[in-house]
Amino acid sequence: MASQKKNAFYAQSGGVTAVINASACGVIETARSHRDRIGKVYAGHNGILGALHEELIDTGKETAATIAALRHTPSGAFGSCRYKLKGLEQNRAEYERLIEVFRAHDIGYFFYNGGGDSADTCLKVSQLSAKLGYPITAIHIPKTVDNDLPFTDTCPGFGSVAKYVAISTREASLDVASMCQSSTKVFILEVMGRHAGWIAAAGGLAASAAGDPPHIILFPEVPFDRAAFLARVDATVKKEGYCVIVASEGTQTADGQFLADAGSVDAFGHKQLGGVAPTLAQMVKDELGYKYHWALADYLQRAARHIASATDVAQAYAVGRAAVEFALAGKNATMVTIERGQGAKYRWSIGEAPLAKVANVERKMPKSFISRDGFGITQACRDYLQPLIAGEDYPPYKNGIPQYARLKKVMAAKKLPPFTPVK
Amino acid sequence: MASQKKNAFYAQSGGVTAVINASACGVIETARSHRDRIGKVYAGHNGILGALHEELIDTGKETAATIAALRHTPSGAFGSCRYKLKGLEQNRAEYERLIEVFRAHDIGYFFYNGGGDSADTCLKVSQLSAKLGYPITAIHIPKTVDNDLPFTDTCPGFGSVAKYVAISTREASLDVASMCQSSTKVFILEVMGRHAGWIAAAGGLAASAAGDPPHIILFPEVPFDRAAFLARVDATVKKEGYCVIVASEGTQTADGQFLADAGSVDAFGHKQLGGVAPTLAQMVKDELGYKYHWALADYLQRAARHIASATDVAQAYAVGRAAVEFALAGKNATMVTIERGQGAKYRWSIGEAPLAKVANVERKMPKSFISRDGFGITQACRDYLQPLIAGEDYPPYKNGIPQYARLKKVMAAKKLPPFTPVK
Repeated sequence: MASQKKNAFYAQSGGVTAVINASACGVIETARSHRDRIGKVYAGHNGILGALHEELIDTGKETAATIAALRHTPSGAFGSCRYKLKGLEQNRAEYERLIEVFRAHDIGYFFYNGGGDSADTCLKVSQLSAKLGYPITAIHIPKTVDNDLPFTDTCPGFGSVAKYVAISTREASLDVASMCQSSTKVFILEVMGRHAGWIAAAGGLAASAAGDPPHIILFPEVPFDRAAFLARVDATVKKEGYCVIVASEGTQTADGQFLADAGSVDAFGHKQLGGVAPTLAQMVKDELGYKYHWALADYLQRAARHIASATDVAQAYAVGRAAVEFALAGKNATMVTIERGQGAKYRWSIGEAPLAKVANVERKMPKSFISRDGFGITQACRDYLQPLIAGEDYPPYKNGIPQYARLKKVMAAKKLPPFTPVK
Repeated sequence: MASQKKNAFYAQSGGVTAVINASACGVIETARSHRDRIGKVYAGHNGILGALHEELIDTGKETAATIAALRHTPSGAFGSCRYKLKGLEQNRAEYERLIEVFRAHDIGYFFYNGGGDSADTCLKVSQLSAKLGYPITAIHIPKTVDNDLPFTDTCPGFGSVAKYVAISTREASLDVASMCQSSTKVFILEVMGRHAGWIAAAGGLAASAAGDPPHIILFPEVPFDRAAFLARVDATVKKEGYCVIVASEGTQTADGQFLADAGSVDAFGHKQLGGVAPTLAQMVKDELGYKYHWALADYLQRAARHIASATDVAQAYAVGRAAVEFALAGKNATMVTIERGQGAKYRWSIGEAPLAKVANVERKMPKSFISRDGFGITQACRDYLQPLIAGEDYPPYKNGIPQYARLKKVMAAKKLPPFTPVK
């Protein structure tokens, strides 16, 4: 390296969460405590796009109080993006542009905060050093409500969604229970989780005794069987008086057909889903005639910082801090992980995994986490999930509303001509 | 009256709320402090149906701790119902049955906790004394998330939904703001409020500066103008980068057509709505091509005790307590109200209104509360709404989930033959 002290680039990628800013807070506060090694921390405006377009937010212009407030602020304070770098061979111009920007701003550390797709991007950036001769240290900071990254016990962002879904399921269930005698008998909550049922599983934490709602959970991992589903709904209504269902947006039939397919596709080529709940509701109405209600929480679930899991917040901060410490320790092409300790009492610590093994690998729910009938979670699943939603971490309020950080977002002066993306 | 000391009947009616049990708590705790005048407090199992079917929950079998826990438990702990008594002339048998049950259980106080329809029922019960010669004191305890009861400054249940909607709007808006550069540009939150836009208006509290989301609020009171709506969405996306919309389920065109009409009808003959958000989303997609997300909170919004307004909780308890005090003071056919004091600082106290004037009157939003363009709220509206969401009243947690009351629900022994409803 030309000098010991380098600037850092931090960016948020993909769908945001209630706690990704807690990771940003961990990165920035830790970098600030190592001013001898790390100069400025630039945050990409709208993720990696900020690097390509040389839109670098100078986090040094934000006060310590503002940075601290990121810990309790949901969503991506610097802007996120859905943009996946192609391979070096397919789009060399993008990588050359990144190097140009990094060199112009003396950036030696690359911290990328995202899920599986961004792990892949982070890996590619880590290879710039070898392939294009630009020295950079790239560390991936895990984030995804989908909880589908491998090697880490959990993904920051998931615990808070899990808590939101568990609480919402419990609350809505009480509502249905009080209405079911003369009105609504079936309630369906549709939750996120495209290919993995982790979030739907969290709805199961609403139950604490046999017969407690939710009575049915629909996982992407379990092929949807219309007849079995309707039979279970009917039996539950007849026995309990009502039936509460938590359905993953990824619920699909044995031949891989999503139950409700909105038909559009996001920037990563993933199908955009939505509408499982109304589809199920119509099915219940048509076949069983029960009055229904349904809810689709969508962004509310992943933005619900007001009821974030304290465990999740602590872990999100810790992986941000660890990313900086890893970089300073000379690690590269590494993802920070969360490791669960042995024993009945929940303990966690920070670990690491090589990005080459992480990128584009999706972790599904273990079969042992889904009950034999396919409609619920097992004790093993409860044991796994329970600690992740533990503790409340309330944001400060003013006038009845949480006070979330507002950044100044001062951009570093541009030094380069505009970037024209190559198609 | 045959004796000074009489038993009381309390019932919950219609759609439940996050704080209706706080009113139950107020009734029961206050009755317990007047044992010289009030004997047992029976709660109707599933509202007024419990009276008709002689399913009376003996609240005396619940511990003081359980009753106290009702204060932080959402939904109707004793069960609610959608069941409207017909007029005395149309269904005399029902009223005679009520008297039979009241007499069998020595009930002299009738506390009915609900909205406009139940105010009507409560009024009819209050007239039993004069019309059928059974002495009973009937007090109505207001409850409705719709905030549409007349004479009261607000309705318990509304403040908590308002807080939930304001917070959810703020949180989801931060989410969209961070995604909009490369992904979602339009977000729509559909909220309750069949004929009055109070709940949608509360979304406006998420904004604290010009340009803040939500950028558009759709009220039932303002005829939906497709062209004006689309133009506003487009202009907002072009100016702010994204657009957040809070839409009332009751959004309708000038000719009274609901934007999305699920086609079914509830027990009171009200059309059951749902699906404004996906309808608007499709419109935005088709006409403007913007990527969208939408959420439909449904029961989550009115059951969200985890983020209840402390003001709302206090008022819900107070109207329950006041109902008992009114009854003991000899009032009848009365609704408890909340009165707002004069001056800039919010102050409230308990008042009263004659049920004869309350029943079946719906209060709409004043015109002065909706901005001239029809897409937002005015300062007068903010001044009205702001105090209602003030303060947090968190429930206790265990294992990451709120601990809500679980009742034993011991039924009083039946003394009468079963009731066969007359069609």
